[in-house]
Amino acid sequence: MIYPRDPDRPEIAMGARARRSPFFDRAKARGACMYSIYNHMLMATSYGNPGREYDLLMNHAAIWDVGVERQVQLEGPDAMKLAQLMSPRDVSKCKIGQGFYTPILSRDGGVINDPILLKLNEDKIWLSIADSDVKLYAMGLADAMELDVVVTEPDVSPLAIQGPRAEDVVAAVFGEEIRAIRYFYFIETEIQGIPVVLQRSGWSKQGGFEIYLCDGSRGGELYDLMWAAGETLLGENWGPGTPNPIERIESGLFSWGTDFDEQNNPFECRLGKWCDLDGDHDFLAKEALLRIREQGPREQLVGLHLAGSEPLPGAVKPMQLTRKDGSEIGTLRASTWSPRLERNIALARVLTAESELGNTILAEVADGSMVEATVVNVPFV
Amino acid sequence: MIYPRDPDRPEIAMGARARRSPFFDRAKARGACMYSIYNHMLMATSYGNPGREYDLLMNHAAIWDVGVERQVQLEGPDAMKLAQLMSPRDVSKCKIGQGFYTPILSRDGGVINDPILLKLNEDKIWLSIADSDVKLYAMGLADAMELDVVVTEPDVSPLAIQGPRAEDVVAAVFGEEIRAIRYFYFIETEIQGIPVVLQRSGWSKQGGFEIYLCDGSRGGELYDLMWAAGETLLGENWGPGTPNPIERIESGLFSWGTDFDEQNNPFECRLGKWCDLDGDHDFLAKEALLRIREQGPREQLVGLHLAGSEPLPGAVKPMQLTRKDGSEIGTLRASTWSPRLERNIALARVLTAESELGNTILAEVADGSMVEATVVNVPFV
Repeated sequence: MIYPRDPDRPEIAMGARARRSPFFDRAKARGACMYSIYNHMLMATSYGNPGREYDLLMNHAAIWDVGVERQVQLEGPDAMKLAQLMSPRDVSKCKIGQGFYTPILSRDGGVINDPILLKLNEDKIWLSIADSDVKLYAMGLADAMELDVVVTEPDVSPLAIQGPRAEDVVAAVFGEEIRAIRYFYFIETEIQGIPVVLQRSGWSKQGGFEIYLCDGSRGGELYDLMWAAGETLLGENWGPGTPNPIERIESGLFSWGTDFDEQNNPFECRLGKWCDLDGDHDFLAKEALLRIREQGPREQLVGLHLAGSEPLPGAVKPMQLTRKDGSEIGTLRASTWSPRLERNIALARVLTAESELGNTILAEVADGSMVEATVVNVPFV
Repeated sequence: MIYPRDPDRPEIAMGARARRSPFFDRAKARGACMYSIYNHMLMATSYGNPGREYDLLMNHAAIWDVGVERQVQLEGPDAMKLAQLMSPRDVSKCKIGQGFYTPILSRDGGVINDPILLKLNEDKIWLSIADSDVKLYAMGLADAMELDVVVTEPDVSPLAIQGPRAEDVVAAVFGEEIRAIRYFYFIETEIQGIPVVLQRSGWSKQGGFEIYLCDGSRGGELYDLMWAAGETLLGENWGPGTPNPIERIESGLFSWGTDFDEQNNPFECRLGKWCDLDGDHDFLAKEALLRIREQGPREQLVGLHLAGSEPLPGAVKPMQLTRKDGSEIGTLRASTWSPRLERNIALARVLTAESELGNTILAEVADGSMVEATVVNVPFV
């Protein structure tokens, strides 16, 4: 067998190492045709029609297989202690049934991940993670300190309903009372006997819920239930989607691994506001963060407007940023044409000295040429 | 823009999160047309002609971009101490300039990874890892114990030359003296000013070397050098390849994440021989392993011969294994048609009670039907 060769449209390799979400077959049947791998699992990233997917998210509602958003479960008497070691927020303030967005930091202040922390009870925490093995860092701490906590990846897989009509779809299935759930709060419930955690959350700014399926054998049933509700309510204005690369940049939602990683500290990637250095709580990175705050960060995560009134191809790798004299000052991490702003926008990391609003620099684009770029605020809209 | 939709041949998504090896552009120019993501980096898995790639590996030589095989560097006075905490082997026996294959174990005995440990000097270790963030586990231990060690992912990217003629190709570039390098031993050297570590190693049983590029900006140069040497020496019998899914199963080379993961202990995945429980060295998992050895492992990694004289499609996900009465006994992890054996073979994990050689069970194949399977020894050839 010889495969069709097209190095410009490469296929993704399948195998047991690229795990499948419980919704995989349903997403494929709905037309998923492009994937990444995220937390060792296949993640659908396109259904072939970016314009329609953006429209559903902005104006209607869509269903996203985000089973790749794995949970790291800390369970046992030391669960809260372990969570606090890794978080610069005072996690004792998180209520049962609440979620906290928090950086997860190593002792040197590196951002290992930026999950939502869900407090299920005093002895049970989930970290709903981005694409790095937080479980291994948590296990390393627990193993070394002999903490009384078990760190696992439980059988929990989120399915997101996102968009301005998402609440209506979710209410049609789970009942009107879910409208009272506040942002990042959640309930443990079930639907037709399928155990789920239902949270007002999701990786968009268009509103919606994440339904954390707690029994992977029932993914198809849950997907079908939600699909039917969406179709009944919204007809053509309903369909599959994915974490949206356009909306997330416009809205200034960060992507760990794309925009920054564990080589960055929180002050370099707009996460400083989540670092509470003046509270009574202690955490591993506190000393490092006090020092970095004093010295000032080396670089900053900024927004850029890119010159030109036509869509540029999106960056598929980090692109160079330079001063006008050609000297390097950082990298462009992700870019898109913004339908709302009708211009090209990007997220970038630049030296702090070049990060002031209005500064004009040069950015490499896909064909290798350099275009003028202006530092602007994030979010863009 | 609407993408061509083909859910059966899905594309891989590109972006800054899927990092690129220093050899990426060269591999693409040579026809890489299928990728996975491994250690947060794009890994070429096919050049479109599996038959030729297998032939080059078995009978000639091939060049593989294995930059995804990242190094976790432990550097500082406590480097050896940290390595020993994670390894069941007595790492003090590893000489400077030597590599040790070793499981990396958590305190409960889970196999976090199975790297080659390279001892560069008394204070500097590399773990040349499979696809999990070992760095985070090592950092967790070091952060909790306040060890005097810095854990990093250095700018080091292996390029493999594999096959029976690989040594000739490498000798043509690095000199005849490299023929004296023993298996898993390495030298630090440079070629045309490019710093590399050269090791007799690689994820095949056909012989060869891995050239660990130590300056990512020079990947193109190194690739071109090796390419030219191979072409001069071997002409048509030279080309690009990848870690080979056929040869690796035939040869019984394991793939962490495919065949087993951190939910398995070493006795479940044929790694028991690397667990030295009777030496003087201590390590985190020792107590757990003594207990598991006493109790016996729950399941075993075995080889299977699958019925049928025609090639079956390779498994792209874990497939069910059952007794003849239909009761579940494990999962088939990876399968292939073996050109050397002219039969279908597979690696599988089955309950210990079903693991004896010659036991006959049923295995699910790609179309959902069940075929007869017989437990056999690994390696297959």
